[in-house]
Amino acid sequence: MGLIVQKFGGTSVATAEKIHLAARKVVAAKQAGHQVVVVVSAMGHTTDELVDLAKQVCGTTNPPKREMDQLLATGEQVTIALIAMALHAQGHDAISLTGGQIGLITDDVHTKARIKEIDKQRILKELDAGKIVIVAGFQGVTADGAVTTLGRGGSNATLVAIGAVLKADVCENYTDVDGIFTADPRIVKDARKIDCISYDEMMELSSVGASVLQTRAVEFAKKYSVPLHVRSSQHDGPGTWIVAETKAMEHIVVSGCALKKDLTRASLKGIPDRPGIVARLFSAIAKANVVVDDIIQNVMDDNTASISFTVEHGDVQDLKPVVEAMLKEFGGGKAYYETNLAKVSIVGVGMKQSTGVASKMFQALADQKVNIQNISTSEIRISCIIAREDAEKSLQAVHAAFDLGKS
Amino acid sequence: MGLIVQKFGGTSVATAEKIHLAARKVVAAKQAGHQVVVVVSAMGHTTDELVDLAKQVCGTTNPPKREMDQLLATGEQVTIALIAMALHAQGHDAISLTGGQIGLITDDVHTKARIKEIDKQRILKELDAGKIVIVAGFQGVTADGAVTTLGRGGSNATLVAIGAVLKADVCENYTDVDGIFTADPRIVKDARKIDCISYDEMMELSSVGASVLQTRAVEFAKKYSVPLHVRSSQHDGPGTWIVAETKAMEHIVVSGCALKKDLTRASLKGIPDRPGIVARLFSAIAKANVVVDDIIQNVMDDNTASISFTVEHGDVQDLKPVVEAMLKEFGGGKAYYETNLAKVSIVGVGMKQSTGVASKMFQALADQKVNIQNISTSEIRISCIIAREDAEKSLQAVHAAFDLGKS
Repeated sequence: MGLIVQKFGGTSVATAEKIHLAARKVVAAKQAGHQVVVVVSAMGHTTDELVDLAKQVCGTTNPPKREMDQLLATGEQVTIALIAMALHAQGHDAISLTGGQIGLITDDVHTKARIKEIDKQRILKELDAGKIVIVAGFQGVTADGAVTTLGRGGSNATLVAIGAVLKADVCENYTDVDGIFTADPRIVKDARKIDCISYDEMMELSSVGASVLQTRAVEFAKKYSVPLHVRSSQHDGPGTWIVAETKAMEHIVVSGCALKKDLTRASLKGIPDRPGIVARLFSAIAKANVVVDDIIQNVMDDNTASISFTVEHGDVQDLKPVVEAMLKEFGGGKAYYETNLAKVSIVGVGMKQSTGVASKMFQALADQKVNIQNISTSEIRISCIIAREDAEKSLQAVHAAFDLGKS
Repeated sequence: MGLIVQKFGGTSVATAEKIHLAARKVVAAKQAGHQVVVVVSAMGHTTDELVDLAKQVCGTTNPPKREMDQLLATGEQVTIALIAMALHAQGHDAISLTGGQIGLITDDVHTKARIKEIDKQRILKELDAGKIVIVAGFQGVTADGAVTTLGRGGSNATLVAIGAVLKADVCENYTDVDGIFTADPRIVKDARKIDCISYDEMMELSSVGASVLQTRAVEFAKKYSVPLHVRSSQHDGPGTWIVAETKAMEHIVVSGCALKKDLTRASLKGIPDRPGIVARLFSAIAKANVVVDDIIQNVMDDNTASISFTVEHGDVQDLKPVVEAMLKEFGGGKAYYETNLAKVSIVGVGMKQSTGVASKMFQALADQKVNIQNISTSEIRISCIIAREDAEKSLQAVHAAFDLGKS
């Protein structure tokens, strides 16, 4: 008998019918002799609807983040109650628990809080009583009892954190896709489902565009050695296992590729060059919660510095006032914004032992007449900034060059 | 400077616009120099929608009551967050608190829990910090932290309980009517708003059909001497004050009249007459949560007993299986159900000192050729069971007989 933590995302619990389908997956695991904890998100578009309600009330003012969390946390509370009801209707004993009720304590950074601890005794008590435990994802409470939410991908963070504290045998992430693919199947027709991938590869893939799992959740799973299984809520077939790196994985040079579309490059030119300005700039940008992608710095001849970096389109509005304030503080310089960029990346642990991987990627892009505007790498990843209009054909070319469609 | 507890019902917070209107009432009280606590219900039809979701999931099975509470409590949590946001948007500092967050501890009778205690320190701390405190009505938690709801009229129970623990100067109940009327204005055209009424009269009026306030909330207000002010959320005019009885009130013989439509009379005939059967019957009915109105018992010549009592139509389905089980247990008898009954009542503290009140009421009904099927009284109330078809004209006749339309 094992302990399984299952998570169902918003689309998998969007209607009463889907809730019963999810409940059947839960019952199957229970009937196979496992103890089962279930983490759920808000139903379908509930979170968007709540955000819209807040906008109607707040108009142009920003809602207080504490109250935003109080509001949003209701979404998952609705789902846990309904899943528990569905399990009862199917003849099984279940209990729903909010983030606060399992003692999921976070810091007090409202709307993107970090988990500090979970009271596993409460969950274990209910499991030992033979119950299926349904936990609200995405939410917690501060030490003072204020409701917090965990930000984007928060339900996955809850899944992995509960898996870690309970030392679960597996964390199952049920989604509307079959697993992790060698590339986005909507763009690459022969993209193939990956059976098994290492935590590090998954983290790199997530950070460069694979959207199924957030980097943070995978990082946490790795830290506590919790196997993750990303699988379909539509059928019972296996999905993708995300596990610790094994010797066998080293033979696979490239595991997958991914695309980040819609990047903007900010170029700051003519900044008076003195020590510390780069650190000052990027700490100010980080404070505005803008994630910076690639960075290129050049010192020019005339004692001015030039810095370029890419951010996602959606962050440009938050970025611009910070950049303006910094240029004023630095006493000179001008900012230019170039939209219509993208980034294509390949990821694989085998890269560490292989040569010629980068040149093969560059050649594949060159064959398609794609101009590479910048290159960045990690030990197991190579990324190229390209024009937005070349994005899809670049991903297709790279996927083909490394034969990723063949298992 | 005083302390005011305000309550806004579901219709008063049904839209973003109405939420801002409610917030303006709150701000007005704050700007008049008062400390303000606000209790709110779920928006508009939210509770009905949540009940409907539960029905979709549960089908013909009954949802577990604990999970029903977990589900329903989200309705008020949404409203408190939105009211706090509206107050922030209007430039005022506010904090929303759930039943759990103010330590509103109840017993563990899910879906109709009773309040055991409230942690007034938490509310006072926020008031002392200059904040407006927004509390979710209708909900609490058990000592174990399970979410509970307080049943019908639960938000009014929260209003009065908070008023009591904080020793508030007044509890204001904002509704979509102007106050308490001498009769239902939809039936009696010249019904008049009552300026001031005693707790006891209000309790009697509530129990015989006036639906604005629940008997339980008024009982609690009386116990802790909290003045209640029922007033309109649409304008600033005064409503009806519900306060302790004064000498002046004794001059008003009849304060108001009310109607209970849609009553059913159950008549149990031919029950073997032995001691204790009545107690056994009514304790079984109470266990099924059916409220019994008037009771008439007759012992027949043939050593069998006959018992009649009235209940509301809506309770008949719950009543029937209990009655059948009891007749089986008693070893004989048969039940008859007569629908299409109603009850008209008059209430007034002055009745205690007056004579001829009952005969005046009976004459008014006789003049309309209304047949009185049963009479019941308390010290300050007289009620007559009549045919459903005579209900409206009976209320009009009684209202006219006691000149209630004239102040």
